[in-house]
Amino acid sequence: MPAQHGFQDEGRDLLDAYVTHEDAVVIGVDFGTLSGRALVVRVADGTELGSATHEYAHAVLDHTLPSGALLAPDWALQVPEDYREVLRTAVPAAVAAAGIDPAQVIGIATDFTACTMVPTLADGTPLCELEEYADRPHAYVKLWRHHAAQPQADRITALAEARGEAWLPRYGGLISSEWEFAKGLQVFEEDVELYHRMERWVEVADWIVWQLCGSYVRNACTAGYKGILQDGEYPSVDFLEELAPGFGGFVADKVEHPIGQLGDRAGTLTAQAAAWTGLPEGIAVAVGNVDAHVTAPAAQAVEPGQMVAIMGTSTCHVMSSDHLAEVPGMCGVVDGGIVAGSWGYEAGQSGVGDIFGWFVKNGVPAEYAAAADRSGETVHELLTRLASDQEVGEHGLVALDWHSGNRSVLVDHQLSGVVVGQTLATRPEDTYRALLEATAFGTRVIVEAFRDAGVPVHEFIVAGGLAKNPLLMQIYADVLRLPLSVIGSAQGPALGAAIHAAVAAGAYRNVRSAAGQMGRVRPHAYVPDESSSQAYDRLFAEYLELHDHFGRDVAAMRRLKGIRSDAVARRHGDGSGTESRVPAGNQEVSA
Amino acid sequence: MPAQHGFQDEGRDLLDAYVTHEDAVVIGVDFGTLSGRALVVRVADGTELGSATHEYAHAVLDHTLPSGALLAPDWALQVPEDYREVLRTAVPAAVAAAGIDPAQVIGIATDFTACTMVPTLADGTPLCELEEYADRPHAYVKLWRHHAAQPQADRITALAEARGEAWLPRYGGLISSEWEFAKGLQVFEEDVELYHRMERWVEVADWIVWQLCGSYVRNACTAGYKGILQDGEYPSVDFLEELAPGFGGFVADKVEHPIGQLGDRAGTLTAQAAAWTGLPEGIAVAVGNVDAHVTAPAAQAVEPGQMVAIMGTSTCHVMSSDHLAEVPGMCGVVDGGIVAGSWGYEAGQSGVGDIFGWFVKNGVPAEYAAAADRSGETVHELLTRLASDQEVGEHGLVALDWHSGNRSVLVDHQLSGVVVGQTLATRPEDTYRALLEATAFGTRVIVEAFRDAGVPVHEFIVAGGLAKNPLLMQIYADVLRLPLSVIGSAQGPALGAAIHAAVAAGAYRNVRSAAGQMGRVRPHAYVPDESSSQAYDRLFAEYLELHDHFGRDVAAMRRLKGIRSDAVARRHGDGSGTESRVPAGNQEVSA
Repeated sequence: MPAQHGFQDEGRDLLDAYVTHEDAVVIGVDFGTLSGRALVVRVADGTELGSATHEYAHAVLDHTLPSGALLAPDWALQVPEDYREVLRTAVPAAVAAAGIDPAQVIGIATDFTACTMVPTLADGTPLCELEEYADRPHAYVKLWRHHAAQPQADRITALAEARGEAWLPRYGGLISSEWEFAKGLQVFEEDVELYHRMERWVEVADWIVWQLCGSYVRNACTAGYKGILQDGEYPSVDFLEELAPGFGGFVADKVEHPIGQLGDRAGTLTAQAAAWTGLPEGIAVAVGNVDAHVTAPAAQAVEPGQMVAIMGTSTCHVMSSDHLAEVPGMCGVVDGGIVAGSWGYEAGQSGVGDIFGWFVKNGVPAEYAAAADRSGETVHELLTRLASDQEVGEHGLVALDWHSGNRSVLVDHQLSGVVVGQTLATRPEDTYRALLEATAFGTRVIVEAFRDAGVPVHEFIVAGGLAKNPLLMQIYADVLRLPLSVIGSAQGPALGAAIHAAVAAGAYRNVRSAAGQMGRVRPHAYVPDESSSQAYDRLFAEYLELHDHFGRDVAAMRRLKGIRSDAVARRHGDGSGTESRVPAGNQEVSA
Repeated sequence: MPAQHGFQDEGRDLLDAYVTHEDAVVIGVDFGTLSGRALVVRVADGTELGSATHEYAHAVLDHTLPSGALLAPDWALQVPEDYREVLRTAVPAAVAAAGIDPAQVIGIATDFTACTMVPTLADGTPLCELEEYADRPHAYVKLWRHHAAQPQADRITALAEARGEAWLPRYGGLISSEWEFAKGLQVFEEDVELYHRMERWVEVADWIVWQLCGSYVRNACTAGYKGILQDGEYPSVDFLEELAPGFGGFVADKVEHPIGQLGDRAGTLTAQAAAWTGLPEGIAVAVGNVDAHVTAPAAQAVEPGQMVAIMGTSTCHVMSSDHLAEVPGMCGVVDGGIVAGSWGYEAGQSGVGDIFGWFVKNGVPAEYAAAADRSGETVHELLTRLASDQEVGEHGLVALDWHSGNRSVLVDHQLSGVVVGQTLATRPEDTYRALLEATAFGTRVIVEAFRDAGVPVHEFIVAGGLAKNPLLMQIYADVLRLPLSVIGSAQGPALGAAIHAAVAAGAYRNVRSAAGQMGRVRPHAYVPDESSSQAYDRLFAEYLELHDHFGRDVAAMRRLKGIRSDAVARRHGDGSGTESRVPAGNQEVSA
């Protein structure tokens, strides 16, 4: 769709650009776990001109609904109106911050957390916005980290295994409780009336695009990674019916919908969305995308062997390849899942920055907070500085980074954290460093699983908020024995979305071309230190032994969660747990 | 020795008293890890009349010598003059606090930490008091928790096993790094010149008595438990020479000495000691004793099946029996080791209150300290209160209480702490409760080892500072499924020492008789709750699995300590470690 907005190809050195204008800009909007960020980007060279953030009013509902109704453990919901508010506030604020004329904007694209699901009517209205469902937990958005569908996920995996379903190896042999089918089955089994009222079971990545352009287009990325769409087919009616009688129509009735490729145009901005955002009606709206996957082109990392790790509260690893392989414990491999025309691999670590944040909030004494105040550092910075002053292994600790479960390679959200080796001399910075290292070891397990499956990783590219911790980055380089590059933007997902907006608007031929012009990376910013790598090899052997013991050999963590559930049920005098009060462990820390 | 001090038997109802006077008092002096406490006790009925405490000026040397010389990891030394200062200050202060006339005092007895060793000349002068040795670490007192002789202990055990030494099973099959032979061998191997200058290798429990009465009498308790004296014999010259050529004379030259039974009189107070203490010259001075063992009579717990746990920074378990058995992993069984005429069993947990204290110091955030301030509680009390408001197992955690190693039943100071099951919802009170429970599970392992060896425990009697935490006590009753009695004195060891002073002074026929009159206990203060016990059975199964995995099946913790030692050596550019800087992990926490 060349020259759609009247821009001319002026013959400059944007090799792949065939529609451009030096003033043309695009908007990328990144919807995270707690906030949405809009970024204004120049199409010609990826310059970031301005941005704005809006925090969701309801954040994450993991304790009560807005009405005060109590939620069970492991629930995590959100409120869709919070996402619309990002369009109404962050987008115009970003345009204002950039100092541009809205008329310069030629396209908008979004990325979202995934798998985050909303039950809607046929017109896209979320069920929680119907007055009669305001008090029904299943009417709300199930955030990616809603982990209460683990029993359903377990049954899906077990049945697929028993039946030898061909799609199972595409997901590392395990289906996550976070994904579309487990969450959908939970709705069916726990609130069947609401399930029947639900006309669409929608990735919020697609729902937000629907809000922008008025059309529901299902993106190839989430449909593949989260929706078990492989080689054009979903799990069969037969499979679903065997899984749960009455559930056989789930795909046909709620899920199936035309697919859009990443970078395609889903439609154009509606009058209503133009009013919300202050952008011109009719500009290109890109097909939905996922925060992690959209970041790969932002880091110019779309070639085979370039693994991108988006490191924030959790880590998502994405890598393109020209061939299909089955990697045990990967999250998925999807044709066109990262860039159209390549196989996109995904793996993940459920908790990374979340774990560090939890430790700083719950495990660091007052004198450290006071010392950080005095030195003008955050507690994270203080602990990082103190931890930097150690030889590898000097703390005597090894930890498992499973406080939020394990996505790859074990795919088990019943797993939990471990620290081994504490003594009366162990200090907070020791444990903090051990937790940093544990996440690096978790990454190495993933990298080695890819290597062993014939999809080797040659370069590790980090994006996300944790890239700014130099100790953490050096630990990763040393542990992985790989050169570590760092994305050149602090707003990788939003930049990646903007790249897709530019492609959807016709400014570049494809995402790979746009990434070459608009992406940003600091190549080999960290390189492994051989003596540290050798010391880490010994610690990694300890990590691996713990990993296999707790992750494969014994079910201790699963039993502990069972003991915990029974205790919660005793507290509330019932055996169900589902609608019972959350356990004390889920409350805010307050003393 | 009736009527030795001119007191008359006035025929009152002190059934076993044959020398008494209603005004007669005795002094018990309890030498702990950080301070000494003197207690004035009425002989007739055990009434505590007054006490005073003196803190050791040098506390524990685990970082530097007084000269500033640096110590290696796992070292823990003390300064003997600090003990004399207790005699000079706490004893007269206790007499003053009691409002008695010193002339009423008919005897004094002491108890001490063990195995705590001092190298001396033949006259009892500690080598560290010779100017030429002031800068030599091996010239100082090696405190019980000096753990740097682990390699020596390992070799002693291995050789005894290989040779089938008959004494080995009396110590649960393992010789501790804390004991006389391991510590002595460390001196021989690391400072042989000083070893040859050392004329006596003395339990400080006996050294302090030597200071009081001018005579060196070796007490039956430490000689048996810590000095490997069994059936009248020490390890042979042949054994010692095979252990380390040149070490064969260790027993004959440094250790062997006449034995005194507990409650016997070692001598009478010298003029010098009378001047220090303000007590009458010539009063009875009892044979030395150990803080844990001396507490059993203070709690009226000297019958078979009554296990006394002295719960403080660590826990020591003592129990009398009328027969000899070999309990795997016990610390020892000694004829007359608790009361003359019975077999005395001892077991121990290396870290208990120490672990709770470490956690409060290193793992509890500022808001808890502030909340405790507001509510007028200590942080321990606040965490206990918050943890009390939980069902058993609700925190989802299980921990290993090995932060200071494991004395019974594994006898391995290379072990370390573990917490399993932490999630992003885990709060400080959850981990705190898990640590409380871990120590109870550790106790259950010990109680079951005694049961399985044919020495069943029928009643569990708690003494020591931790007895005042009702949550902890109830957890122990529930976990052990035993009625739990609590000593009726806050100063059990000092009261127990006073009982021995009364016997040494001839006021009672024996310790059992004196305990009946002077001891104090609240019988069955806590009883098990069946539903809690059932829930704990499930958690205990998890503990046991962890215990056996890390304690028996894999050497991960030992390897982690090896990795740590190598890291410390790298930091200091040497490979020895022995005289190197302590690792960062041993420094004071300061940020």
